[in-house]
This record gives sequence, C-alpha cells and structure tokens, in this order.
Amino acid sequence: MSFERVAIIGLGLLGGSIGLAVQDRLPGVATTGWDRDPATRARAAERGLVGTVCETGAEAVAQADLVIFCVPVGAIGEVAGELASAIPAGAVISDVGSSKQSVAEALAKALPGHTVIPAHPVAGTERSGPDAGFASLFLGRWCIVTPPEGADAAKVAALSAFWEGLGAKVELMDAQHHDLVLAVTSHLPHLIAYTIVGTASDLEGVTQSEVIKYSAGGFRDFTRIAASDPTMWRDVFLTNKDAVLEMLQRFSEDLTALQRAIRWGDGDTLFDLFTRTRAIRRSIIAEGQDDARPDFGRSDHAG
Amino acid sequence: MSFERVAIIGLGLLGGSIGLAVQDRLPGVATTGWDRDPATRARAAERGLVGTVCETGAEAVAQADLVIFCVPVGAIGEVAGELASAIPAGAVISDVGSSKQSVAEALAKALPGHTVIPAHPVAGTERSGPDAGFASLFLGRWCIVTPPEGADAAKVAALSAFWEGLGAKVELMDAQHHDLVLAVTSHLPHLIAYTIVGTASDLEGVTQSEVIKYSAGGFRDFTRIAASDPTMWRDVFLTNKDAVLEMLQRFSEDLTALQRAIRWGDGDTLFDLFTRTRAIRRSIIAEGQDDARPDFGRSDHAG
Ligand SMILES: NC(=O)c1ccc[n+]([C@@H]2O[C@H](COP(=O)([O-])OP(=O)(O)OC[C@H]3O[C@@H](n4cnc5c(N)ncnc54)[C@H](OP(=O)(O)O)[C@@H]3O)[C@@H](O)[C@H]2O)c1
Ligand SMILES: NC(=O)c1ccc[n+]([C@@H]2O[C@H](COP(=O)([O-])OP(=O)(O)OC[C@H]3O[C@@H](n4cnc5c(N)ncnc54)[C@H](OP(=O)(O)O)[C@@H]3O)[C@@H](O)[C@H]2O)c1
Repeated sequence: MSFERVAIIGLGLLGGSIGLAVQDRLPGVATTGWDRDPATRARAAERGLVGTVCETGAEAVAQADLVIFCVPVGAIGEVAGELASAIPAGAVISDVGSSKQSVAEALAKALPGHTVIPAHPVAGTERSGPDAGFASLFLGRWCIVTPPEGADAAKVAALSAFWEGLGAKVELMDAQHHDLVLAVTSHLPHLIAYTIVGTASDLEGVTQSEVIKYSAGGFRDFTRIAASDPTMWRDVFLTNKDAVLEMLQRFSEDLTALQRAIRWGDGDTLFDLFTRTRAIRRSIIAEGQDDARPDFGRSDHAG
Repeated sequence: MSFERVAIIGLGLLGGSIGLAVQDRLPGVATTGWDRDPATRARAAERGLVGTVCETGAEAVAQADLVIFCVPVGAIGEVAGELASAIPAGAVISDVGSSKQSVAEALAKALPGHTVIPAHPVAGTERSGPDAGFASLFLGRWCIVTPPEGADAAKVAALSAFWEGLGAKVELMDAQHHDLVLAVTSHLPHLIAYTIVGTASDLEGVTQSEVIKYSAGGFRDFTRIAASDPTMWRDVFLTNKDAVLEMLQRFSEDLTALQRAIRWGDGDTLFDLFTRTRAIRRSIIAEGQDDARPDFGRSDHAG
C-alpha cells in the first residue's frame, strides 16, 4: 500500500515543509491542509503549502488515507479529538511531534480504533509559522517512526516509504527509547541554550548590547537555538520530563567537574575532555549531518 | 602613522587569516611570518599565508613595525620572551588572544620597554592550523583593542586602523571588562558545549552512533563549538578563571530554576523565558552578526 491523500493539520514549519516536499517529490499524492489560524490558512494558500487549504479540519481529513498532526505536542490530543468523527476509519494517523510517548498515548486516547503510528522527523530550524517551511527540510535527515506494539507492518512500511519519498532516512524505534535519545541530542541542548541566553541577558556588569555585539565568539549559535518556538518547547519539556531531568542531572555533574578543574587550574582534565569531544564532531560531518566548511556557507552570500 | 611591515608569529587560523587579509586588502603592507612547526611553515609558504615565511622568529620580526602574536594565550609570554632581543625597539606589539588581562601582563613582562597594545578579533571557527585561515574571517566582525593605561594614542589609532583595514569594526575596552564580556559571549558557551558533548558521549542508555545520527535536533551546533582547539581553550579557561567561574555560577543557578520548573510542570515559567530569549536572537541578526536564512546557507551547496 501507499498513501494517496495526505491531510496535514497545522501549517507551520513542519506542516508547511511536508506539504511542499510532497508536491515537490511525490507528485501523485494529493495534499489537503488546515490550520486553526485564518491568517495562517491565507498565507498557506498563497504559498501553496498544500494542494487544498480547507476552511475546517473536518474537510481537510474527510478523504485522507494519512493524517499528520503538525501542531505542538501538548495540543495534538485535543486537536485529534475534535476531528475524531471526521477522520475516515481506515486512515493512518501520524504526527511529527518532538516527544513520542506522550503523543502516542494522547492519540490512542483521542482516536480509539484508529491505526496510530507516531513519527518524528529530526529536522528543523528555529523559525515557525506558515512562512518558515521549505521543501528540502527533510533531505538526508532521519525520521524516527515509533510504531506501537502490534502495529500493522504494511502500514508502518507505507509510512516509512512516505518519509523516504520526502528525502528522509527512516529508523524504527520504540517511543521510550526515542524520548531518551532525543532528550540528549535535542531537548537538553535547547534547554541549555535557553538558559545561557537568559543568563546573558540578566547581567549587571555586561550590557545587552555588548552581548549582542560580541556574539560571534560562540554565543550566537546558542541564540539561534534559543529562538525556537516557545510553545513547542514548553510542550516538549513538559511531555518528556523524566528523560530531560535525567540528562540534565548528568550534565550538571559533568559541569561541576569542569568547574572544579578550572578552579584548581587542572589543565590536563580540560585538555583531555576537549580532545575527546573533537572526535564526535568528525563523526557527525562524516555522517553528513552537518557542514565542515570554515564559514558554514556564509561566504556563499557575503556581499 | 600606519604600519608597513607586519610580522605574524604563529601561522594557524588567526595568523593565517591575518596574513591573507592583509595581502588581500592592504596591498602596500609587507607581511612576514613564522611558526615553530616546520610543517606549518611549509604549508604556510604553499598557501602564501604571508609574503615571506621565515625560518626563525627573529628573522620574521627583524624589520617589523607591528608584531602580532597568534599563538595560544598560555604561550604568548614565552614566545615573546624568546624574541625580545630581535624585536625592533619602535615596533608595536600586539596579539589576538581570547583573554586579555593575562596576555597584557605576560607581554609587558616579556617585552619591557616595548609598546604593547593587546587586541582580540571576535571572529573564528572551530578549525585550526595552517589550512584553516581565510581572508574574509574578520569582515564585519568586531575587534576589541585593549590599550593599557597611558598607551600612545597614535599607536592605538594605527592598530585600530589596521584592523579596520582588514574589514573589522574596532572597539576600545579595558582588558578586565573584555574578559568579563567574553566570559559570557564566548568562554561560557564553549565550556557548556564541551560539557554537553562529553555528557552525550558517556551514556549507557544511548549509543554514540545514535547521538551522531540524531544530532540535527540541536546537538550538532554544540559539537561544532566543542571541536575547537583543545590547547587554545584550555589556556583561555586557565587565564580567565575568575570571570568564567562567575558566569558559570550564574548559569548554574538559572539552570536549577528551569530544572525546578520542569519538575513541577510549571509551563508558564518555561514559556516566559523562551519568549524573552527570542528577542536577543532578533537583535543579533539585525546587527549582522549571524544569518537568518532558514537553512543557514546549507541549500547553497546541497546536492
Ligand atoms: N521546529 C522544529 O525544529 C521541529 C522539528 C521536528 C519536529 N517538530 C514538531 O513539529 C510540530 C509543529 O512544530 P512547528 O515547528 O511546525 O511549529 P509552528 O511552525 O509553530 O507550527 C505549529 C502550528 O500549529 C498550530 N497550533 C499551535 N497550537 C495549536 C492548538 N492548540 N490547536 C491547533 N493548532 C495549534 C499553530 O497555529 P498558531 O500559529 O495559531 O499557534 C501553527 O500553525 C511540533 O509538535 C514540534 O514538536 C518541530
Ligand atoms: N580559533 C578562534 O576561533 C579564535 C578566535 C579569536 C582569537 N583566537 C586566539 O588566536 C590565537 C591563535 O589561535 P588559532 O585559532 O589561530 O590557533 P591555531 O590555528 O592552533 O594556531 C596557533 C599556532 O600557534 C602555534 N603554537 C601553539 N603553541 C605554541 C607554543 N607554545 N609556542 C609557539 N607556537 C605555538 C601552533 O603551532 P603547533 O601547531 O606547533 O602547536 C599554531 O601554529 C589564540 O590565542 C586564540 O585565543 C582564536
């Protein structure tokens, strides 16, 4: 089986990117979409994010064989519940939420009797809204699919093929493990970036304008992450609390050890850690998950 | 006055970039350079990082009216001391070190009687060595010049004009304030990035290969920073200990507050912070210190 009519609920960065990518790479697949905000729907229609922007969610899902919820994880259950009676019985239900155990529970509860196969494309930017999406967002990135136990293998395969069709690489994982892995590769980095940007904006001895001026020393990379959507990230931390708190605990212990090394002038401990962390970077570049050019492509548009 | 013969000691990322930028943008200025490593000197000559790569430091500085030390901050004093007798009496002594109080002291001690005007271009990448430099590194970036009290105004102006000639914007600051500002915009971000990459590589429940695969969720930006030169950064933390420890203390307090908010499910606290940090990002982009494109230029070289 393969999907022919995909409904996208929520036309922000993720929803818009899926819609554009389907039209770009899977021309045989029809797309409908809906967003609760009329201004977003209007902009989505202008940009052609999906084939048909519908005035109601019920219209958007009416003919769908795949429904993808692209709203913040804390809202997925409620939004799905409102559309329960409109979604065709045979449609596969999925999402793109950044935490997966709580979404799986919320969707199962909101849509009993439906086939729910949650997924999470590990691709994004700090932008949000109907202007943020672009068709190449998923190219070469991983999409983690987290089928519940006993999920229909043909439907899981179809969803995987759909994401591969958008240019992603697919990995199956159970939801609990997903939440642990993403706690370290995504949630903890965001939490720390938000924290340090907050710390820097509250100093007496250093003005905010100085922080901004000299941000090229490293800080600016954190501000980029800390510019991500507040609603989305609030929901992620609240729905993946245990794994995030566990990772945070380990991070704090490691930071305390480094603090001690600095206080005592223990250069060897610092040097050893700094040497180890270099190796990870090399692996990420080798895997194609980032760019090694010295200016990260900035010179392409200098002028 | 303006400089006509610039000697660059240390031909890595910073030294190489200065050499290339001078040749590119200040064609009337002669450059000599030296590095302790013969392989680096050979590569520097191949790439033409400076007009003349010398076999000894003494040769490189012999005719210079400006000497710039581009070695790790912990080595600047020793390297300068070795060249003390070879440096012309009238030459201005400067550097590019990432911490400034300790460098000012080390240079004053190693070269008594010379005019020492330390500086720090706030521009860099995580790469190092003779292949890392490029001429546009300083374009639009700030260079902080930290003249000691009573420094000769004409010489300070000449050094500022030199950096402006390389495309940088110049700000004068006292060394102590520099060290505080950079502790928050550069040193703390690096320390945190090194820590989190270390934390992620030591987990039992998540494999290193998973960390690498799913790094696009935020982690990869930290690994880039944590791939920076271990010697350079060890020296920075050891020479700017007090300011780094103070910033670290504030950061830890803020992180503890967020941890508590997550534990108690206090979404409003999270949402408020995440909203505040967005504003800083906007200012950095408005200031031209980073790029707002959704894919950060990655699409320029996709394929
Ligand atoms: N951003 C990333 O980097 C990234 C990466 C991977 C996965 N994800 C996941 O993708 C999902 C969508 O995120 P996004 O980045 O696409 O965010 P986005 O650009 O803000 O889009 C989210 C859309 O959902 C709508 N929405 C928000 N709350 C809603 C509610 N209670 N009921 C109905 N609609 C609501 C928003 O409308 P309004 O404008 O009216 O609020 C918006 O149109 C999230 O679950 C997130 O975890 C994000
Ligand atoms: N990287 C950045 O982002 C950045 C930004 C602003 C300022 N800075 C400052 O720039 C300076 C140079 O850093 P970089 O990034 O250019 O590093 P780099 O690429 O590693 O270059 C440093 C050069 O100094 C040489 N060196 C190291 N230790 C030495 C010693 N004890 N005696 C003599 N030479 C020695 C190195 O030679 P070997 O290869 O033989 O060790 C290398 O050629 C540092 O003070 C740093 O704080 C760096």
